[in-house]
Amino acid sequence: MQGAQLIRVSERDNVAVVAAEPGLAKGALTEFGVEAREPVPAGHKVALEPIPRGGAVIRYGAVIGRALQDIEAGGWVREELLESPEPPPLDSLQAPAAAPPRGEPLEGFWFEGYRNADGKAGTRNVLGITTTVQCVAGVVEHAAERIRRELLPRYANVDGVAALTHSYGCGVAIDAPGAEIPIRTVRNLALNPNLGGEVMVVSLGCEKLQPARLGLPGEEPFLVRLQDDGLGSFESMVARVLELAERRLERLNARRRVRCPASDLIVGLQCGGSDAFSGLTANPAVGVAADLLARAGATVIFSEITEVRDAAHLLAARAPSPEVVEDLKREFAWYDAYLARGGADRSANPTPGNKRGGLANVVEKALGSVAKSGSMPLDGVLPPGEQARGKGLWFLAGPASDFICGTLELAAGMNVHVFTTGEGTPYGLSMCPVIKVSTRTALARRWPDLIDFDAGRIAGGSITLEQAGWEMFRLILDVASGRKTWSERHGLANDLALFNPAPVT
Amino acid sequence: MQGAQLIRVSERDNVAVVAAEPGLAKGALTEFGVEAREPVPAGHKVALEPIPRGGAVIRYGAVIGRALQDIEAGGWVREELLESPEPPPLDSLQAPAAAPPRGEPLEGFWFEGYRNADGKAGTRNVLGITTTVQCVAGVVEHAAERIRRELLPRYANVDGVAALTHSYGCGVAIDAPGAEIPIRTVRNLALNPNLGGEVMVVSLGCEKLQPARLGLPGEEPFLVRLQDDGLGSFESMVARVLELAERRLERLNARRRVRCPASDLIVGLQCGGSDAFSGLTANPAVGVAADLLARAGATVIFSEITEVRDAAHLLAARAPSPEVVEDLKREFAWYDAYLARGGADRSANPTPGNKRGGLANVVEKALGSVAKSGSMPLDGVLPPGEQARGKGLWFLAGPASDFICGTLELAAGMNVHVFTTGEGTPYGLSMCPVIKVSTRTALARRWPDLIDFDAGRIAGGSITLEQAGWEMFRLILDVASGRKTWSERHGLANDLALFNPAPVT
Repeated sequence: MQGAQLIRVSERDNVAVVAAEPGLAKGALTEFGVEAREPVPAGHKVALEPIPRGGAVIRYGAVIGRALQDIEAGGWVREELLESPEPPPLDSLQAPAAAPPRGEPLEGFWFEGYRNADGKAGTRNVLGITTTVQCVAGVVEHAAERIRRELLPRYANVDGVAALTHSYGCGVAIDAPGAEIPIRTVRNLALNPNLGGEVMVVSLGCEKLQPARLGLPGEEPFLVRLQDDGLGSFESMVARVLELAERRLERLNARRRVRCPASDLIVGLQCGGSDAFSGLTANPAVGVAADLLARAGATVIFSEITEVRDAAHLLAARAPSPEVVEDLKREFAWYDAYLARGGADRSANPTPGNKRGGLANVVEKALGSVAKSGSMPLDGVLPPGEQARGKGLWFLAGPASDFICGTLELAAGMNVHVFTTGEGTPYGLSMCPVIKVSTRTALARRWPDLIDFDAGRIAGGSITLEQAGWEMFRLILDVASGRKTWSERHGLANDLALFNPAPVT
Repeated sequence: MQGAQLIRVSERDNVAVVAAEPGLAKGALTEFGVEAREPVPAGHKVALEPIPRGGAVIRYGAVIGRALQDIEAGGWVREELLESPEPPPLDSLQAPAAAPPRGEPLEGFWFEGYRNADGKAGTRNVLGITTTVQCVAGVVEHAAERIRRELLPRYANVDGVAALTHSYGCGVAIDAPGAEIPIRTVRNLALNPNLGGEVMVVSLGCEKLQPARLGLPGEEPFLVRLQDDGLGSFESMVARVLELAERRLERLNARRRVRCPASDLIVGLQCGGSDAFSGLTANPAVGVAADLLARAGATVIFSEITEVRDAAHLLAARAPSPEVVEDLKREFAWYDAYLARGGADRSANPTPGNKRGGLANVVEKALGSVAKSGSMPLDGVLPPGEQARGKGLWFLAGPASDFICGTLELAAGMNVHVFTTGEGTPYGLSMCPVIKVSTRTALARRWPDLIDFDAGRIAGGSITLEQAGWEMFRLILDVASGRKTWSERHGLANDLALFNPAPVT
């Protein structure tokens, strides 16, 4: 067989998706023992069993709609045969009688990480320099560059310097509703486990976001205030930052990697530049890895509220308690109101291109994104900017913008990032390794020095979803132990992007 | 005399402000021939002539309120003696019978600049690399660093490379109301005169903000699209950016400074980290320079809508036509609605600290900021992100946030930036020289390698406002001709910050 013809994500699915280009010919026999009744284009669904009129069409293990007429096994389940479901109102969401099963605990997996004083583990050993306001960014970036050049060569166990610059801190409505989000994000970024608990803050002095408001723990002196009388001249500011940095470098450098259980991982998931294969290969493979991570006791965070909003009822169906459903409802309602206040238009979802690619409706589209989260119970919901509060699977209720999502996952405590991409993006972060996963083999071949994992092999038939998930799980452990990803090798790092729903002034 | 005791900004003023610390003693004779009737603290106002009950209190040449009781010459004009004016509703604003006089044209002033093909003039010769989306920022910054290191040494007439990275372009509600602001800002930044008209764009490929939407002129090929099939590997992306950059460096390098009239200047004004002396020394001195620039035919842009909103009626009184007043009303109303939608609170203005410092009400505070704009007619109002459309004095209706304001002034076409500061800030930009002006001599002494102009000498009495204004006018011409400011010498540059009033998604 030349490549997998059909991909079925869950054993409960009664449809599978045609993976091979350009599609199935009429009469083609497939690996699920069904024969195509008509030509079915690649990316589209074929029925694996007869689906009666009114019967559920199941993909990703979830009902994506009901058949408007009888569909034979091997039939093309196209958009017009599917009843477009009305989005259930948020107040109708409720916890299920039983959440999905958790699967067997997975023992004996570990990585070599850095153990922090608070008990968390880092996968990198990075000096972070927190900033309270954009005014200091120029000085801090200048100082960070000098630290890299002049100090770092003497501290071989330190992986790098992350200048946590951003565009918040002054010229903003700091007491308006929503301002707590960027503020707690700045705070929690400083506490990311990859920064080793060695907090260091550079402030201007007169900014609205005063350092005390961050409530950061830290041994004094951990703060440089550029307007302090003691700091005459630009040179002395830079010298002071270097002096504080060096004390931290000495301590960071004394650390060594130790064996940490896989349960110390906090893995943030994201997709960006998605294509028709995202929901077929990369995202479901990440979903398999997410289940393995959850079974191993790790924390898994998925996010992108814009992408999953239309599958709200299916997330609720994975909630082990009514509290989780209430948290989901609150966060979704807040975000709906945020978009409505700004006049954002959700009506173009899915796009004509999505439909041509085989996505019948918004629920199916959302499930392609949610597929990253696997099939485990949803243990909790994180408001944007907050730290993850437990093990298992967490939904971070933030925007899908790659950089905002990445920043919020860092604030949540992410120590390994898994990023799936179809169109391709040279994404990278300075605080955390990013494993970039391509949905197609063609992209992995075109960008051999950017893509870390080729999930396109699933469509090619050389590997199953299950195998890909296990391979990714092992890669996550390797990367957590210090194996460098492509963006790290190039030193590619995008800037942080804070989510500030409040006005600037 | 040990320092100027009193500062009067306009000859029309019937109050002056005590400059000397800690203030005037009772009975002290001042340079305006009045004797203090009571102790008046520094930063506070003293009456220069008797002001009857109901009479206008005039500062910055404008009525800041009415006396609630008779005030003697030499009396302390404190907050509780002043009727707090009700802010005039926007629809009451109207053009005056006669705008203020324009002053004599000032001939014969020039600078050495770079003449661009479109007739504008640059004060620097910088290679700008426009980006459509944050996804490409890591690659572009990596490439820019290599251009600086490997190419720039061979192109001695080129001042630098500006990577125009930002956090817009995808993950945003690109069709929501207000989205036109960041989009036209990205476009107009690329056309800033200091970039010589040599447009070059790096795009990812799948982003919402497609390069065509920017409508940039440019000789093909001026675009690198990272997802293009031709670009296999990260290394080839960087190589392609370097290749395009080098063609532009060759052309930029062939340019030479030529004599340009002062009317080619587009000077952007801003204040940040203000203190009680901002409205006494630095801002009024910049105002004198602004008048000189306007008389010389240059374009002067001031902004910071949050700071000047409460002086709307006084801006309207400088409008030479009803159209300018309508433009002001439209922009102020839009911004009022933007703040109200986000629940921003304007009621804390002025702050208790402002009042202790001598600011009686919001109008007086706003006038301290508006003082930068001098006394000339207000020739036009620029919506945020648009290019300046003419000579004379323009109000840019954008937020006061230092970095958003600077970015919007760059998009308007600014080729010299004047930035006044009281508390001090190490502000800098990569595309344009920034002249940093201190309000106090103490700051200029503490930061000798950051402050370019000490306006504190006015309070010290060693220079008059008029002299300071002329000195600043001449410094602007020198800097425009290539004299480096402190932030340029250190290579200090803050990131661009786009004003996006629409939601992220």
